Amino acid sequence: MSHSQRTRSGHATMPLVAAAQGSTPSRRPVWFMRQAGRSLPEYRAIRENHGMLESCFDPELVTEITLQPVRRHDVDAAILFSDIVVPLKAAGVDLDIVAGTGPVIAAPIRTEADVAGLPRLDPAQVGAVAHAVERILAELPAETALIGFAGAPFTLASYLIEGGPSRNYVNTKALMRGAPEVWNALMGRLADITITFLQVQLEAGVDAIQVFDSWAGALSEADYRTYVAPHTDRVFAEVAGYGVPRIHFGVGTGELLAAMAAPADVIGVDWRVPLTEAVRRVGPGKAVQGNLDPTVLFAGPQVIEREIRRVLDDGATAIATGATGHIVNLGHGVLPDTDAKVLTRAVELIHTL
Amino acid sequence: MSHSQRTRSGHATMPLVAAAQGSTPSRRPVWFMRQAGRSLPEYRAIRENHGMLESCFDPELVTEITLQPVRRHDVDAAILFSDIVVPLKAAGVDLDIVAGTGPVIAAPIRTEADVAGLPRLDPAQVGAVAHAVERILAELPAETALIGFAGAPFTLASYLIEGGPSRNYVNTKALMRGAPEVWNALMGRLADITITFLQVQLEAGVDAIQVFDSWAGALSEADYRTYVAPHTDRVFAEVAGYGVPRIHFGVGTGELLAAMAAPADVIGVDWRVPLTEAVRRVGPGKAVQGNLDPTVLFAGPQVIEREIRRVLDDGATAIATGATGHIVNLGHGVLPDTDAKVLTRAVELIHTL
Repeated sequence: MSHSQRTRSGHATMPLVAAAQGSTPSRRPVWFMRQAGRSLPEYRAIRENHGMLESCFDPELVTEITLQPVRRHDVDAAILFSDIVVPLKAAGVDLDIVAGTGPVIAAPIRTEADVAGLPRLDPAQVGAVAHAVERILAELPAETALIGFAGAPFTLASYLIEGGPSRNYVNTKALMRGAPEVWNALMGRLADITITFLQVQLEAGVDAIQVFDSWAGALSEADYRTYVAPHTDRVFAEVAGYGVPRIHFGVGTGELLAAMAAPADVIGVDWRVPLTEAVRRVGPGKAVQGNLDPTVLFAGPQVIEREIRRVLDDGATAIATGATGHIVNLGHGVLPDTDAKVLTRAVELIHTL
Repeated sequence: MSHSQRTRSGHATMPLVAAAQGSTPSRRPVWFMRQAGRSLPEYRAIRENHGMLESCFDPELVTEITLQPVRRHDVDAAILFSDIVVPLKAAGVDLDIVAGTGPVIAAPIRTEADVAGLPRLDPAQVGAVAHAVERILAELPAETALIGFAGAPFTLASYLIEGGPSRNYVNTKALMRGAPEVWNALMGRLADITITFLQVQLEAGVDAIQVFDSWAGALSEADYRTYVAPHTDRVFAEVAGYGVPRIHFGVGTGELLAAMAAPADVIGVDWRVPLTEAVRRVGPGKAVQGNLDPTVLFAGPQVIEREIRRVLDDGATAIATGATGHIVNLGHGVLPDTDAKVLTRAVELIHTL
């Protein structure tokens, strides 16, 4: 298959892969978390007629939405358009994504019996995602990496336990600390689901993966290492054999950077921690990704250029002090009201520096 | 006046003040942020018939609500029941506190003219607060400290600029970075308001103050030092002469601890950063306050005791490595669904250890 040939032969010359693996990229790789999303009029036009989950399970829509920011911004990576709960939905968990709220789980998981009743994910259940990956790879420029997408077990667990988005993760942390055997059983099942979801994407040919532990920043490092790392580390280990860059990201994770970087090749850094400080925390041998504050894109061209130059300088120092490479990104997702033209100009600037 | 005598004579023997000032407290001081709040049935009963702002400006209600957790839990400090926007409301800013939303500002502040039109705070406008402090001090046990309350300029600015609570502080940060002269004018005015509000409480006899920069954790250290610290530092400097412990707190402020501790006597630490690590970041000569994860209180007595012992051990190590003292607290406010009996038992345990 063409996508397979593309992946195996051209992989190492992609700027994103080169930066992640310690060779010299042909240009500074840049992409934006949530680049496929509400900042793009062409995305909003699609979503007027299609729900979120419907869009995630329709290969044609996934392909179109994933490619939109590549066409518009000339970014160095596409990221598979998906949602953290997609593999749960595919496995048969009764959930929906409610506009303005987020994922809503019909029957929250809080007991040993609940965990036992959690369905497993059969790769065929995410066949639409595999098909989308193949279609995207057939259309994607040869130098543009396709990044696979998955949520980490802790963030998945928080949705299942709380029944939806949460502010304080009270039930999640109570289960984690108060019933560690139930917790570990749940996290084990979720790690299995995440592994399967990533393997499907990797088999279909993605050039890298990013694991989003969106809410891990609610944990102390000690709690992260005790209750989360064993499961997330297993996810990363199980997909190591594919030889593609494995990116690990969460927001508000300054205290967790060393623990989160340990199993990964690339550590995502939010805007609160300078890239140089991130390297100090994670040690040498990891690439860094980030970390422009997404709100900078609202402050006018002079501030944007100043902040981009600062992040690029910080990235260069990070490399000089032991980072494998630097993938330019925001420190969190593109905010919905961001002007798409501003993103395009940011990419142009980054590619000239 | 009795409260004044109480403050000047008995001040240094209060466990909270002793811990903050480096002498040996008669028992480990403990209080809880938001201890006067929805976790108490007697608080909910009052609020059934009184709005938030109404409660904050009624000396009788402020007194009753402030004293409720002292009576129930035997904590070592009361904190003046108030809200971050109280001095803005008192000064004449058109705002309300909407249940389930938070503060809502009628006319957001975003231009030089808006800033010029912002009213100043006359001490007489918070006479009700001064009166409440006097009443509370007349009823408070001699060893129990009364902590004065104020929001820091950045958090106040974020409410005024965004028009209410915000998730990403887009407008706040755009003004901060894009129009620093307008920003600094606004922050200067807000620092003045905070200083006046604190001075009124200090003149009325509070034994300590805590400045809440609730949302400062959204900033990088570099941005905090550039745009916020000059103004907040002035607030702390202007009230230094009262000789009472000055506590500085924000959540998600691991990267900011050194900058936030610099002007203060006590640094509040959330649960993400171990107290020993906080001491490493802020250097010796500061007391630490915190930092039990508020969600621990939902995990059952064994986990609660284990975590309390861990925090107390960490506090002891913090003192051994340079901290002036340790004031036990949560790492953030009491969650509304917390069982009040659990808080009482936590205080009992802490006082026996």
